Amino acid sequence: MVNIVLHEPEMPANTGNIGRTCVATGSVLHLIEPLGFKINDKMLKRAGLDYWDKLDVRTYVNFEDFLAKNPGAKIYMATTKSKQTYTDVEYEDGCYIMFGKESAGIPEEILLEHKETAVRIPMLDHIRSLNLGNSVAIVLYEALRQQGFKELELEGQLHKYEW
Amino acid sequence: MVNIVLHEPEMPANTGNIGRTCVATGSVLHLIEPLGFKINDKMLKRAGLDYWDKLDVRTYVNFEDFLAKNPGAKIYMATTKSKQTYTDVEYEDGCYIMFGKESAGIPEEILLEHKETAVRIPMLDHIRSLNLGNSVAIVLYEALRQQGFKELELEGQLHKYEW
Repeated sequence: MVNIVLHEPEMPANTGNIGRTCVATGSVLHLIEPLGFKINDKMLKRAGLDYWDKLDVRTYVNFEDFLAKNPGAKIYMATTKSKQTYTDVEYEDGCYIMFGKESAGIPEEILLEHKETAVRIPMLDHIRSLNLGNSVAIVLYEALRQQGFKELELEGQLHKYEW
Repeated sequence: MVNIVLHEPEMPANTGNIGRTCVATGSVLHLIEPLGFKINDKMLKRAGLDYWDKLDVRTYVNFEDFLAKNPGAKIYMATTKSKQTYTDVEYEDGCYIMFGKESAGIPEEILLEHKETAVRIPMLDHIRSLNLGNSVAIVLYEALRQQGFKELELEGQLHKYEW
């Protein structure tokens, strides 16, 4: 499994959407405050559909609080500033992947402490970034692909697919 | 490069978001009507940010019109109904990946004609589907990963990354 960490997310629709992706994949969602919305925001629940209640979501007052409560966490930092791409690293079972706020990404001071696990999603030059929910989906599914989708592809389930 | 095809998309925010992902990756977006919105919808442009005008977007009155105007297209069909996962196939340069409408997916009659290129994104049993924009991002970036990100990772660009 994989842990998704959002550092000070601003838009409830994005976090709701990411919550839905976490439920779909059995990922834990960690939210580092301040958030740009209340945790019971309507937009958040609408984007998360009726899945929000099934989500394992944990909140922290700041990054230090997150570190203290997740000791020894191996954290990959998604950023547009790294030379290393997100497919260049090996995602261990139980690892953490962190994403910064929509308007600014992960703060420089945190990135400087985690250069060797900073990863970038390749994209053309003339665009600032992908949507946050899409960025999470891309990196999370690369980690799950590397792990062989083993918790998602239960043999007993395959009968339900038609072909 | 990769072509993204949306079959009768319903929600403008999703299509706007997918348009942004297409601009970021140099992908062409093909929209098959009827659409659940007008092509100049505000929600569409807001989700696409200021990138919509840079998008190569083509519309078709129906699936037959799409096939007639893209002869010989190799089309992967994203569906929750296939045993084959999206990482099991090899995405050729210039291939097409098609996604159905949010509420119902690709119609059964089209899927039955394309069983061998139908692909599924693994997810847990208790969720209906991922958000459409996220599904597109996941499969598109797997195709680009297989192609080595070669049009996105221009050597001359790497100087701008800090580490």
